[in-house]
Amino acid sequence: MNINEIRNAARRNAGHVRRTPLLTSPFLDEIAGRQVYVKPECLQHTGSFKYRGAHNAISQLTTEQREFGVIAFSSGNHAQGIALAARQNQTPATIVMPSDAPQLKIDNTRALGAEVVLYDRESGDRDAIGAALAEERQLTLIKPFDNEAVIAGQGTIGLELANQAREEGIRNAQVLVPCGGGGLTAGVALALEHDAPDLTVHPVEPTGFDDVARSLHSDRIEANAQRTGSICDAIITPSPGQLTFPIMRRLCGAGIVVPDEDCLRAMAQAFTRLKLVIEPGGAIALAAALFHRHQIKGDAVIVVVSGGNVDAPVFTDALNRFA
Amino acid sequence: MNINEIRNAARRNAGHVRRTPLLTSPFLDEIAGRQVYVKPECLQHTGSFKYRGAHNAISQLTTEQREFGVIAFSSGNHAQGIALAARQNQTPATIVMPSDAPQLKIDNTRALGAEVVLYDRESGDRDAIGAALAEERQLTLIKPFDNEAVIAGQGTIGLELANQAREEGIRNAQVLVPCGGGGLTAGVALALEHDAPDLTVHPVEPTGFDDVARSLHSDRIEANAQRTGSICDAIITPSPGQLTFPIMRRLCGAGIVVPDEDCLRAMAQAFTRLKLVIEPGGAIALAAALFHRHQIKGDAVIVVVSGGNVDAPVFTDALNRFA
Repeated sequence: MNINEIRNAARRNAGHVRRTPLLTSPFLDEIAGRQVYVKPECLQHTGSFKYRGAHNAISQLTTEQREFGVIAFSSGNHAQGIALAARQNQTPATIVMPSDAPQLKIDNTRALGAEVVLYDRESGDRDAIGAALAEERQLTLIKPFDNEAVIAGQGTIGLELANQAREEGIRNAQVLVPCGGGGLTAGVALALEHDAPDLTVHPVEPTGFDDVARSLHSDRIEANAQRTGSICDAIITPSPGQLTFPIMRRLCGAGIVVPDEDCLRAMAQAFTRLKLVIEPGGAIALAAALFHRHQIKGDAVIVVVSGGNVDAPVFTDALNRFA
Repeated sequence: MNINEIRNAARRNAGHVRRTPLLTSPFLDEIAGRQVYVKPECLQHTGSFKYRGAHNAISQLTTEQREFGVIAFSSGNHAQGIALAARQNQTPATIVMPSDAPQLKIDNTRALGAEVVLYDRESGDRDAIGAALAEERQLTLIKPFDNEAVIAGQGTIGLELANQAREEGIRNAQVLVPCGGGGLTAGVALALEHDAPDLTVHPVEPTGFDDVARSLHSDRIEANAQRTGSICDAIITPSPGQLTFPIMRRLCGAGIVVPDEDCLRAMAQAFTRLKLVIEPGGAIALAAALFHRHQIKGDAVIVVVSGGNVDAPVFTDALNRFA
């Protein structure tokens, strides 16, 4: 993969994907001890960056593929991105989701016209369920991260960041990215390698689900011991992808690991200082910038906020405890 | 006043004021029965549009005026805008605020370096307190809405909206604006008169504080019977301004009046669908679009969200009741 695939994705997504702004707050700078720039993909269509990759992938399907439809596995953000992009491209979408996904994500995916098939995250075999459906209905599988078109679509955030960093005069900064399977992280790293090589990407993961940090450290793909047990539902993938890991290994700095509670604290800060609604996993890079400052270098840090699809009880819990 | 003053304000504010995006959600379109475009000034510096007018006014002060400093009356959003613009222009700011203003607004105004003087909204005479301080310290008063530089600064939102409406292909739409004294409403109306004359501004006010709607109806300045009693603290001004009313009378359509509870409902929708934190008064135009659709005409409506400075208990109340 290279920068051209990301530039092509940006052309395909033009007029569909929203160019998100770069936000700041002097209050956040003070907590972080440096300038903090926030790229709020919670403001993207469907409330997360996932629509970028989904739209890029689905808009490249053949007429025959569109006739049969697409299938995806997702805890909810990829699901919504696929559902919206499928509807826009007049192709049916089937989404296999864990039954413990946030209710808002399940409801929205259905409301966007997709058929949702639920499975139990502990006991069910997601891949077997998906493979059976895909074969039966001749569906095209769009993987959430190990798919070049998806990685390229997420990488368009990196193109925007490179331009915005230039406009703001940001140089030699670290770019912190919430990381599950690594589609967003790898895509952004590829774009920045070419367009802003002085910006270094660091993946950020929840405690207990630090497969990418450990893989980068050991130089081979490592897996998480558990599959559930974090509020960061969007980014608790078992291990980095076959496509994403080599890109991350080549381009990323060390991973940063953040406990769940710090994500809630970051959500409360984003409420007060940025007027943004962020979901726990989406807030993890902001949490690293605000509460793990000694793991970060330089005068400025750029934080990607990956999504905002959070149920109200989780959000009010964050405010009750930390706002 | 005319379009040139707004264009000059845009030049003075360039590089300081954030150009806010135009957001949409298919879920909101469905509730409203038409396309809804949201201009989120809660994402502006200090969490409200007020920084636009404050920066335009303060950046025009003479060296001598800057040496003595500025004074402002505000329930909190103008206060924060003035405090930040004053700090950026190296001039001291004194802000006279009601003691029942949201704690967040009082805290932020102080944190931005301003001196805050509190008064009781029912019994205190804000103007007398301010006049005494201004004379004693030779401060320049920057009124929250009846000031041409402030109106011109707020009007820069109208310039952005005209461009964004052109980009999106929006024509003949109504533009709903949260309205207190009318600085934002008049500024936006002036900008659109010149740059997008097919867009018509309608002020939106809380029930019991509909002085502008009544003034537009009777064709003379009317006042509210009470001074407290709405959760929309940002927009419960006693009556329209001497400068703003003639502009609104010439350019605006009829006012829309919305009960407080609908603002809380709109805040919950903005949480779920837009991932935005909006304060009650800031959500009133969105509330009109969503829950008073029969008072609106056309296939599309543009909604200005004026601010997001809300205390956590008020926000969680909105979510608990309506999310």
